[in-house]
Amino acid sequence: MRSTVGWQADRAGRLRPTTLERRDLRADDVAVRVDYCGVCHTDLHAVRTYDGDGPLVPGHEFTGTVTAIGPEVTRFAVGDRVAVGNIVDACGVCAMCRAGQENFCHVFPTLTYGGTDRHDGTTTLGAYSRAYVVREAFTYPLPAGLDPAAAAPLLCAGITVWEPLRALGAGPGTSVAVAGLGGLGHLAVKLAVALGADTTVISRSADKAGDARRLGAHDLIVSTDQRQLAAARDRFDIVIDTIAVPHDLTPYLGLVAVDGTLGLLGHLGTITLQATDLLIGRKKLTSAGSGGRPATAAMLDFCARHDITADIELLPSTRVNDALDRLARNDVRYRFVLDMSDLPENP
Amino acid sequence: MRSTVGWQADRAGRLRPTTLERRDLRADDVAVRVDYCGVCHTDLHAVRTYDGDGPLVPGHEFTGTVTAIGPEVTRFAVGDRVAVGNIVDACGVCAMCRAGQENFCHVFPTLTYGGTDRHDGTTTLGAYSRAYVVREAFTYPLPAGLDPAAAAPLLCAGITVWEPLRALGAGPGTSVAVAGLGGLGHLAVKLAVALGADTTVISRSADKAGDARRLGAHDLIVSTDQRQLAAARDRFDIVIDTIAVPHDLTPYLGLVAVDGTLGLLGHLGTITLQATDLLIGRKKLTSAGSGGRPATAAMLDFCARHDITADIELLPSTRVNDALDRLARNDVRYRFVLDMSDLPENP
Repeated sequence: MRSTVGWQADRAGRLRPTTLERRDLRADDVAVRVDYCGVCHTDLHAVRTYDGDGPLVPGHEFTGTVTAIGPEVTRFAVGDRVAVGNIVDACGVCAMCRAGQENFCHVFPTLTYGGTDRHDGTTTLGAYSRAYVVREAFTYPLPAGLDPAAAAPLLCAGITVWEPLRALGAGPGTSVAVAGLGGLGHLAVKLAVALGADTTVISRSADKAGDARRLGAHDLIVSTDQRQLAAARDRFDIVIDTIAVPHDLTPYLGLVAVDGTLGLLGHLGTITLQATDLLIGRKKLTSAGSGGRPATAAMLDFCARHDITADIELLPSTRVNDALDRLARNDVRYRFVLDMSDLPENP
Repeated sequence: MRSTVGWQADRAGRLRPTTLERRDLRADDVAVRVDYCGVCHTDLHAVRTYDGDGPLVPGHEFTGTVTAIGPEVTRFAVGDRVAVGNIVDACGVCAMCRAGQENFCHVFPTLTYGGTDRHDGTTTLGAYSRAYVVREAFTYPLPAGLDPAAAAPLLCAGITVWEPLRALGAGPGTSVAVAGLGGLGHLAVKLAVALGADTTVISRSADKAGDARRLGAHDLIVSTDQRQLAAARDRFDIVIDTIAVPHDLTPYLGLVAVDGTLGLLGHLGTITLQATDLLIGRKKLTSAGSGGRPATAAMLDFCARHDITADIELLPSTRVNDALDRLARNDVRYRFVLDMSDLPENP
């Protein structure tokens, strides 16, 4: 076991510094010094609903540097820049794993934090910490051209929007609208634009127009303007809904073209809607989250070729509570990333 | 105006004989002697929830014979066999109408009964009657090879399952499951098989196995057998759910393949589900109902080429109340059709 330091939730919903143990390397493990870790809405939710049952160290989109490798590791060497997302293991034998969709593993993927290690049964502790130990198979080389801080959010927010955009065929000749311009949404815009789709931002207010343009969007629709909504009726092949709070889906389904799809990515939970909202226009509702290993590697490669990273605000990890407070208020354009270099490597 | 006779609902949920008036022909109208009218679940619902507000004469899938034509009618002559479905008019100018999806008309299509005529504002009265007057544009030639009684249900049940099967790409190399073997379901099986899809029936009991085979299905899954459900997990590109009562969608979404689609056709109303049921496997939920004019014509042509009609039980129209009672008990294989020849042509 090796000790490291990180940020652990208390029952009051605050993160406090802690010392934690990382396992000794198994044959196919790599040890990673965590350099940068993105702050995901999932982290906020986990911390704010934490009931004290088992230790909670958030963080599941990070980049870092390999510090040690197990004897069977072949793809990485000490010093390599790597990236890790929200899945660190899966059964490997079910139909989903065999198809490269480990995020849908029938047994259930091992989550980067709050999961249960498949070998020793311990609760996984996340990357709001200075070190992580992870199977080689769930570790990705960080492409050389990508800034390691701004690339960290690609590993959760990025892959979460990439998979449905690809599965739904976003590209030249298709129209994509993105509702909610946060961590997920701004990456959905960048990726949809780079894929060649005609891309529109749907925002509650017109003051995001400049940002939308800067992200590459071709148009902006103000969702509180009924005339704009009516004019955009049935317009988009794909609507990516990244709004993080419960909301009525009817106006967003109204924007979907005949045989088009609304992808719910932001607020997961119970969905209630009227069948007629789908029937009229044969519209489809789907959801998505995270991604499999092949798609994650493809997404990183695509981002390197198109120079896509997240728009981030980089904070020292000591300001993690500020980051969560501000994320709760939606006060970030568009993703906080924690700089872990303020934590000692060897406590 | 011309008088005819038909079956009108009373507040007790029974149908009673009535005399009703059909409009004088407009320039683009055809008058049709109704020969056969299918009994749809919609009819049952309308009759059983009828509040006495305006006259209710059900019936929206019928075949008959042209008895007169307006001066501008070009496609039909007296004596022609025709078919009419549940839409008899639409705005004709909205994007949906222009795209041939009159069933999604933005103004709203004029329904065959219980609709509001776009010219005189009267409530439309359906085809549980001996005569109907309808715009030429919403009248279809009945292909010569199709039995006019067994073809009547194609105009609502048939097109309702045809449109999603086509839109979702059912054909060689795809797998289709049909849940609920009633009026919609049995036609979905026949059409999916004829389209070349590997087709499975999902039924609550194994006693439908013979019927499923006779309809051309390649397999049957018993939905109450957890082992069979588990073995069919993620198996079908398309699941057509024609179950007419509220039910949990989770087991049916479980059968949908990654990136596949569940089409809800039977029970329309409020849908409640968990986002994770869609997220895990990026599964899609959609609905469909009725069809546009081009698709309806294409469906009739396809049915003629593949010799597809409904499996019906033909009853004299005087037994309409029996038919509704038995439909409510699901006691029909698979569609009642009323023979209207027991009604006088000229009362």
